[in-house]
Amino acid sequence: MTHQPQTRLERGTQALAQIDGEAGEAVIASLADIAPDFATLLLEFPFGDIYTRPGLDLRAREVATIAALAAMGTAQPQLKVHIAAGLNVGLTRDEIVEILMQMAVYAGFPAALNGLFAAKEVFAQRDAA
Amino acid sequence: MTHQPQTRLERGTQALAQIDGEAGEAVIASLADIAPDFATLLLEFPFGDIYTRPGLDLRAREVATIAALAAMGTAQPQLKVHIAAGLNVGLTRDEIVEILMQMAVYAGFPAALNGLFAAKEVFAQRDAA
Amino acid sequence: MTHQPQTRLERGTQALAQIDGEAGEAVIASLADIAPDFATLLLEFPFGDIYTRPGLDLRAREVATIAALAAMGTAQPQLKVHIAAGLNVGLTRDEIVEILMQMAVYAGFPAALNGLFAAKEVFAQRDAA
Amino acid sequence: MTHQPQTRLERGTQALAQIDGEAGEAVIASLADIAPDFATLLLEFPFGDIYTRPGLDLRAREVATIAALAAMGTAQPQLKVHIAAGLNVGLTRDEIVEILMQMAVYAGFPAALNGLFAAKEVFAQRDAA
Amino acid sequence: MTHQPQTRLERGTQALAQIDGEAGEAVIASLADIAPDFATLLLEFPFGDIYTRPGLDLRAREVATIAALAAMGTAQPQLKVHIAAGLNVGLTRDEIVEILMQMAVYAGFPAALNGLFAAKEVFAQRDAA
Amino acid sequence: MTHQPQTRLERGTQALAQIDGEAGEAVIASLADIAPDFATLLLEFPFGDIYTRPGLDLRAREVATIAALAAMGTAQPQLKVHIAAGLNVGLTRDEIVEILMQMAVYAGFPAALNGLFAAKEVFAQRDAA
Repeated sequence: MTHQPQTRLERGTQALAQIDGEAGEAVIASLADIAPDFATLLLEFPFGDIYTRPGLDLRAREVATIAALAAMGTAQPQLKVHIAAGLNVGLTRDEIVEILMQMAVYAGFPAALNGLFAAKEVFAQRDAA
Repeated sequence: MTHQPQTRLERGTQALAQIDGEAGEAVIASLADIAPDFATLLLEFPFGDIYTRPGLDLRAREVATIAALAAMGTAQPQLKVHIAAGLNVGLTRDEIVEILMQMAVYAGFPAALNGLFAAKEVFAQRDAA
Repeated sequence: MTHQPQTRLERGTQALAQIDGEAGEAVIASLADIAPDFATLLLEFPFGDIYTRPGLDLRAREVATIAALAAMGTAQPQLKVHIAAGLNVGLTRDEIVEILMQMAVYAGFPAALNGLFAAKEVFAQRDAA
Repeated sequence: MTHQPQTRLERGTQALAQIDGEAGEAVIASLADIAPDFATLLLEFPFGDIYTRPGLDLRAREVATIAALAAMGTAQPQLKVHIAAGLNVGLTRDEIVEILMQMAVYAGFPAALNGLFAAKEVFAQRDAA
Repeated sequence: MTHQPQTRLERGTQALAQIDGEAGEAVIASLADIAPDFATLLLEFPFGDIYTRPGLDLRAREVATIAALAAMGTAQPQLKVHIAAGLNVGLTRDEIVEILMQMAVYAGFPAALNGLFAAKEVFAQRDAA
Repeated sequence: MTHQPQTRLERGTQALAQIDGEAGEAVIASLADIAPDFATLLLEFPFGDIYTRPGLDLRAREVATIAALAAMGTAQPQLKVHIAAGLNVGLTRDEIVEILMQMAVYAGFPAALNGLFAAKEVFAQRDAA
């Protein structure tokens, strides 16, 4: 007989593993010696509170995140994590490329280009794995 | 016997009408006396070239646009047009609210709040129409 | 005999009242009909989790928030709330003006000017109250 | 027998009058009661130090400023001042429209649109004057 | 007997070669395996539609682009391409340095510094070539 | 018998040495061959004019700068210089970590993460020195 995860931290830890996979766990690990409390907050709020909400499926959530990070242009490492997360939750490479191309309209061609180059790296890592 | 639209301008004009509706047409009209060529480019590139591409449905395209514009925080009028466009292509109000809430994670709480207040205005206009 | 607040929501509600005062409560109220869950998350994470952490006093926290919001330039309503919050937790008007002037160095003169004009409005509202 | 202005403040005051005209003087005046020292710094550094440097003519300087402010999207009031300044130093309305249209490529269509709407306002004020 | 280029793609390909030179062609090549359609759109819209418009000479267009990219601060690779493009269309190194210095006023000293360091790299590559 | 520094340049040079230390001097040196006048302006305006103003102590000034640079997300090298500067003027490592964590609320989790990773680098360099 299994139980639902009960704390935000447990729920967030499970969601992070499902969505971001190893890349997400690497981020959490990298915070251990500088800001361990921030690792907890990152699991609890974005993953425990937001991604686990009903009302929007994980596929649409990753479309939103990839678009936002590419448009902002200030979060290249996190964009790569979420391009991988998009693949994890069922987006195809072609769909991710379409999202990034569309950002040319809203955030300019450099934002789209830098997003596409991030995707190129993530896809190559997958192929090499 | 009907034909497919043949020029990018025709294709874009049709896509703008379908996606943005009256709000999009108002933007085009407002350019007439200041930059009429830009109205043409706006129909041709974003709508004729990008939104009509296969490979990502309009619903996912509007998830991406709403997320990007809310995260950037510099395009409040365009965010309102695309919240309305999201409703036009089948997103529910609750889904739009979820996308905007999620932006708190990537662009901060002010970006999410300002996005939610934009949605509140658009939803109220729909209710009043 | 009093108790410590026990939930994040209670702790956040208390912190919001102390720091942002009426302006913060107005933000929470304005979310009631569009995204009530986001009001809860706003009380819990920024106020319940972050502002109540030891290790940085509220005065320094508001210096950081005023600087960040002025530098970003995309959150004018939230900047006004936090200029008022700065006064609530003990910053003087002159100190707030100094923070905003300094933003000219890091985010440019327009960011500093728009921050100073926000401060002018908040100070005038205080004088009129 | 006339003299060259000798202090940075005098040089900046003269440059502000030449470039930004009344709109610039209004900005200086609006700082009088909130941050009079910042008015001095604004005259001294941007106008006394930068705009008066040889090596780039005022026309090219205003092309750069209009492009930057439109691309940033966080400085609409200052963009309007510099669209007017562009006209003051010899840019034509058509050239300003071209600069703003070009920003669609680098900062996205919303940045270009919001810049064009700012130009529309400034041009209408000139026509009404 | 030669002809004018007739398609947007031909016109854009020619403009890209003239303005961005080898650096631009490298960007196009780098898209071949990830988003070949985006390479086409990049040639057609920015270069075929915008840079070839009459009404603003290429020199002024590059002043605008260099200023915008430096001010945004999110497009360092593209800024380097356009610093080189500025040299290609007749801007001097001193003029480019002036544009970048001026960005300190509008986008802050870090934006100007990061732009100047990009210019330093591009100038050194030219000297080494 | 010593004198107070009398020019803005002298005052700025002294302030830069006190606040940014070697990292600041390296920035000045790196400008020597590309834009030596900008090195002078950087000493004169931010350091000679702003940081030496009374009305806000250096500790609060560095809280503001660290927060702004982390929130903007476009100035990673300058953020590292100012994390070191914060330590120089008396902020503790824990206080700097708190400021950066707080930026998750206003600029999103990626801004906070990238700020924390910058701090990790600066702290490691101090430990190795």
